[in-house]
Amino acid sequence: MKVSGRHYRTIWLGPGGSVCVIDQSRLPFEFSVAELASVEDAARAIRTMVVRGAPLIGATAAYGLALAVRVDPSDAAIGAAAAELLATRPTAVNLAWALGRMRRRLEAVPPAQRAALALQEAAAICDEDVEQCHAIGRHGMRLIEDIARRVRRRVNVLTHCNAGWLACVDWGTALSPIYLAHDAGMDLHVWVDETRPRNQGASLTAFELGAHGVPHTVIADNLGGQLMRDGRVDAVLVGSDRVTAVGDVCNKVGTYLKALAAADNGVPFYVAFPGTTIDWSIDDSADVPIEERSPIEVTHVTGRVSNGAVATIQIVPNGSTALNLAFDVTPARLVTALVTERGTGAASRDGLLGLYPERRACS
Amino acid sequence: MKVSGRHYRTIWLGPGGSVCVIDQSRLPFEFSVAELASVEDAARAIRTMVVRGAPLIGATAAYGLALAVRVDPSDAAIGAAAAELLATRPTAVNLAWALGRMRRRLEAVPPAQRAALALQEAAAICDEDVEQCHAIGRHGMRLIEDIARRVRRRVNVLTHCNAGWLACVDWGTALSPIYLAHDAGMDLHVWVDETRPRNQGASLTAFELGAHGVPHTVIADNLGGQLMRDGRVDAVLVGSDRVTAVGDVCNKVGTYLKALAAADNGVPFYVAFPGTTIDWSIDDSADVPIEERSPIEVTHVTGRVSNGAVATIQIVPNGSTALNLAFDVTPARLVTALVTERGTGAASRDGLLGLYPERRACS
Repeated sequence: MKVSGRHYRTIWLGPGGSVCVIDQSRLPFEFSVAELASVEDAARAIRTMVVRGAPLIGATAAYGLALAVRVDPSDAAIGAAAAELLATRPTAVNLAWALGRMRRRLEAVPPAQRAALALQEAAAICDEDVEQCHAIGRHGMRLIEDIARRVRRRVNVLTHCNAGWLACVDWGTALSPIYLAHDAGMDLHVWVDETRPRNQGASLTAFELGAHGVPHTVIADNLGGQLMRDGRVDAVLVGSDRVTAVGDVCNKVGTYLKALAAADNGVPFYVAFPGTTIDWSIDDSADVPIEERSPIEVTHVTGRVSNGAVATIQIVPNGSTALNLAFDVTPARLVTALVTERGTGAASRDGLLGLYPERRACS
Repeated sequence: MKVSGRHYRTIWLGPGGSVCVIDQSRLPFEFSVAELASVEDAARAIRTMVVRGAPLIGATAAYGLALAVRVDPSDAAIGAAAAELLATRPTAVNLAWALGRMRRRLEAVPPAQRAALALQEAAAICDEDVEQCHAIGRHGMRLIEDIARRVRRRVNVLTHCNAGWLACVDWGTALSPIYLAHDAGMDLHVWVDETRPRNQGASLTAFELGAHGVPHTVIADNLGGQLMRDGRVDAVLVGSDRVTAVGDVCNKVGTYLKALAAADNGVPFYVAFPGTTIDWSIDDSADVPIEERSPIEVTHVTGRVSNGAVATIQIVPNGSTALNLAFDVTPARLVTALVTERGTGAASRDGLLGLYPERRACS
């Protein structure tokens, strides 16, 4: 998508051979590019959320492995690099998926061929992600078009966290249908949950919608329920970090509360993600690991002071502690439909297998 | 309750005849007392949330009217002062209740007697609030004791916003049972919703629980649902700004989302408030006015930078707007029980009339 009129992806191979990413920890106040020169750089970028979003985490891990292979293409080095990258974030399944795909491809060829192949495979993962996100957008746009035909006025979509192009390589998952609908001339408005504690909605989603010219309003995470009661939300559209084989949705903490409110008010609740987000090995959502992050993300907030400098402020009294679980699980029963690159399906084992029939044998 | 070992109420008559309040806009980083010398000062203190919390707003309005009467005890002046005070905040019903009570008392006596009577009546409103909050605490503590007997371990209570002694004159509404249970030696822990956008949980509730020594953990408003799914919340206990005649609960925005999660997980959801919070004139929660406050409360956050100074930071990109509705409505069907100074009752017209049988004639 575009920033200041220039097209960007979130990750690309730089001219000097290093991997370039948009430093999302500095958004929305500074648009800067970070260069990752080593697997350590890539792991750090994922861990410190310079890059974030399940698909982009996978893409960054793939390029990180390519950076490691360039230094040492041995099986041992690949294994060590993959372990380091895998340990950065526990919840997003795309991370393990991308690393597994890279390892399978690399370990099938002699070490001397691996450096070139690794770059090629990482680029393929990125290109496929862009294609998948665009396909998600086409399928999801139909759902928005159906609503527009019914309500015959501006369509109000609520989203949580950032499942836009900044979370992917381009287009986004939950926001891809919104960009396509907006570009097709539909009158759309997005309620943007600020998404405490890290405020990815207020910073990243608001930034990318604003940069693309999509009308939007930032709201406290607490407000969505009342807006639904008031009939001011036509659909909720979110992404996911891991979808279980039965359609339970692990996503940014707070998603479950919005799903409850949507169900209570008859508002459709859609979850958009590429097939790589599905963890076919997990049936019971209690088995999804929920990442616990530093309490500092709750006790402190970062933003811009009036002179333009970025500052971090403490918002709790000294002596008060905080708990910071980054994700929650929305049970499949609260999800109206899942939207993937293959189309739209029910949030259930049958719904997922209908979209991915090749998985029937494995399940 | 105590701050640094000294007992305070939130509002009291100062030695010089002005009204003293704890300046809650400076908490949790600075504990300071503001002096209100005129009705204008009192109105400004309510409007700018130097004082907040439905019961304390009522008490401050009562003292504000007393300050006006001291200057001019005429019916016209009382009417003008009451109108000014009533216009400060639209949602809390205690404001109108306290002003109505003051006016009825004052207008029944000759102007020359009104100044003294006004101070006396305002003090009575405060004393009665303290008594009521203590009674709420005694009734609510029994609910917590029941849970403690069942779970036989530390009891985890989740609360939203600040319905503690800082919201009242002393003790609090939702937190009063917690203080009494804690003081009685029960092993209790409180999950404190930070309560965006104004963070009354992170600042005020965490402050007062910490000052009193009650174990607590601050969480993002988004987390409560997952904690309930994980069995880590034994009860939700919140206050209210206005309860309709059928038991619907208007409270700080986000309360409804927690009530939905509580219902979905079989967690009891209790609402504690004095009888003055009930608006017997409203049956349909759609008639409850929901205050819209400045978008700046969403787009900006105030806290303390590392050098100790208090700073305000912007957390959304330039060009993004925000909507800031301060309250939401939780339907009675999601409320396990109401707790008032009269005892515990169902969230329904019958439940409320059971507690306040004198209202049967009027309904």
